[in-house]
Amino acid sequence: MQGKFIVFEGVEGAGKTTQIHHAKSWLEKTGWAERLTQASNLQEPITIITREPGGTEIGQHIRKLLLDPTISESEEITSEAELLLYAADRAQHVIQFIQPYLEAGHIVFCDRFTDSTVAYQGYGRQLDLDLITKLNDIATFGLKSDLTLWFDVDVEQGLERARGVTLKENAKGDRMEANDLAFHQRVRDGFAAIAQNSPEVVTINANQSLELVSSQVTKVLEACFSRWYPHLSNPS
Amino acid sequence: MQGKFIVFEGVEGAGKTTQIHHAKSWLEKTGWAERLTQASNLQEPITIITREPGGTEIGQHIRKLLLDPTISESEEITSEAELLLYAADRAQHVIQFIQPYLEAGHIVFCDRFTDSTVAYQGYGRQLDLDLITKLNDIATFGLKSDLTLWFDVDVEQGLERARGVTLKENAKGDRMEANDLAFHQRVRDGFAAIAQNSPEVVTINANQSLELVSSQVTKVLEACFSRWYPHLSNPS
Repeated sequence: MQGKFIVFEGVEGAGKTTQIHHAKSWLEKTGWAERLTQASNLQEPITIITREPGGTEIGQHIRKLLLDPTISESEEITSEAELLLYAADRAQHVIQFIQPYLEAGHIVFCDRFTDSTVAYQGYGRQLDLDLITKLNDIATFGLKSDLTLWFDVDVEQGLERARGVTLKENAKGDRMEANDLAFHQRVRDGFAAIAQNSPEVVTINANQSLELVSSQVTKVLEACFSRWYPHLSNPS
Repeated sequence: MQGKFIVFEGVEGAGKTTQIHHAKSWLEKTGWAERLTQASNLQEPITIITREPGGTEIGQHIRKLLLDPTISESEEITSEAELLLYAADRAQHVIQFIQPYLEAGHIVFCDRFTDSTVAYQGYGRQLDLDLITKLNDIATFGLKSDLTLWFDVDVEQGLERARGVTLKENAKGDRMEANDLAFHQRVRDGFAAIAQNSPEVVTINANQSLELVSSQVTKVLEACFSRWYPHLSNPS
């Protein structure tokens, strides 16, 4: 039984990480995890949590190049090199990690995927969207998400949340967060444009309270899992 | 005065590095270096030697990912991720290093460029040639070499030379050299196919003695520099 690929998208501070863990708990509490594990004959946990960039060992090195401001004192990474590094990370991630888990029947939760590249590099850095689409096609080998949850948060509020967390650990912040508000507003608008044209994207208003956001995520997951695996739906 | 971009290509052990240094000495001994430095009003040496991958600080990190077999114990880098990493290295190199030197009037000698990607990833690893052409276009921003010297050496002889040198330093060899002879034969045939269709490529028979190879390089450089800079040609 083929697994499912569920992507969590949004600007910094949108609450993706919290909601990935909420989704994992939901799968376990509702018995879906157990029923799916049995149906797929899996010996290990059904839920796999991963992220981009950095979902593989090679990807961890690429992530460092992309996000660590101390990696080079003398030079800025160019937008095109950045785009190509994200694509390299993705190609490695899809082949070495995501595809094998999906083929074994796992539910793979991924923090960022192709939509982030379109939003950040396309809308944010204003690189050519056709070029980005081509690179995404190369890097994904045609893999698309079964469901993408886009957490739409007010950009300023999201950045404050993200910086509040990150600044405790790293006084410099990471490179992406050092960009200005206008950049992040373009990224947010990019996600909105993608959501409008992609049937697999469900928009969640992430300006609401954590409880409301979580309950919306639960509703979307309930609907999707019942549709994907009707024979495993809990009759109660 | 715009500089010139001269690329040295060939399989491992073809003698590229030796010939780059020969070319630099030739420029100095013949007075070309001095005349060009004066004409371009340069304060620093006219000749710049660089290589791919690894011509920039970011590129050094990418080079390590590509060629260091100890970078990951648990996973092989996929062919597509490898191709995209080479492209990222090139984009950074062209924008941050090669273009600024050419604009200032320098003569840039580069050990490997786009033809290596076509030969190794296209012919060697048999990835799609159209895809490679597209990635090369993205990564070079349209920059093409003014002259490419392809050192055509018997593959087995080249690998023996390269391994003889490398094995002294590194018992494991580097990753590229661990591939088999058939791979390197395909790479050599790739370079041959490129040479046949590219007016800027001059083929040098690198199976000959070092003296003969060097004298052929000298002849090609003499012809090119006289054609490029006729007003700076030495009347003698």
